[in-house]
Amino acid sequence: MSLSGKYDDQNIFAKIIAGEAPAIKIFEDDAVVAFMDIFPQSPGHCLVVPKAPARNLLDLSDDVAALAITRVKAVARAVETALSPDGIIISQFNGAPAGQTVFHIHFHIIPRWENQALGRHGGGQADTVELKAQAAKIRAALT
Amino acid sequence: MSLSGKYDDQNIFAKIIAGEAPAIKIFEDDAVVAFMDIFPQSPGHCLVVPKAPARNLLDLSDDVAALAITRVKAVARAVETALSPDGIIISQFNGAPAGQTVFHIHFHIIPRWENQALGRHGGGQADTVELKAQAAKIRAALT
Repeated sequence: MSLSGKYDDQNIFAKIIAGEAPAIKIFEDDAVVAFMDIFPQSPGHCLVVPKAPARNLLDLSDDVAALAITRVKAVARAVETALSPDGIIISQFNGAPAGQTVFHIHFHIIPRWENQALGRHGGGQADTVELKAQAAKIRAALT
Repeated sequence: MSLSGKYDDQNIFAKIIAGEAPAIKIFEDDAVVAFMDIFPQSPGHCLVVPKAPARNLLDLSDDVAALAITRVKAVARAVETALSPDGIIISQFNGAPAGQTVFHIHFHIIPRWENQALGRHGGGQADTVELKAQAAKIRAALT
């Protein structure tokens, strides 16, 4: 899978955006939806997903990219308030060799704590009850 | 070093922005400067640095964040054109436990190739002649 290619609207994030697949949501507006990553690399790992049908940042419009990063910032701040991490990684992967596994543009927000190793993405599905509790805390901090 | 803290204007990126330290530049406008990472994790690894005095994304204004991500996109596209990577990682680290080493907001653009491991950041300083050649290619693809 290379950087370029046709957008496939059957990907899981497109289904979440369309309301056809479940997600533990944190935030949603016309431009983006933010929800918990079910294969988290750390507690509180969540995603901000622009709704526009784009594979990656390279084929996203400037306007949507600009809106998306302000939402990433807002959710990252809420994660900081809600979970008090020592650091936060923002990452966005373009193409499979860069670590992209779902071919719909998304930004990772990954809290870090001192002396806690980062888990492998896809290492294991998180407990839904825990994810819901984290999402509720982050949502509360957003408003 | 935690997520919050006072901005220290003696950091190396502030000096590059002020023209007091050298950098192999790719692009510059009123909002950002983009230059080669001298400790690259892969060939073509470069940085987009908003000029605003902010430690990280959390204390950057929405307006500057929005401008910055459009510049990240433009430089990433130019990297794709210039170097033909198989993937591109965009990352932005907030706080030392997240991997931040210079406490001025910056976005990494890291090209990836199939079957080539990513180097450790800070693993070694790159050859200046090589960095200048990569920067020239990326600049040419930007215009």
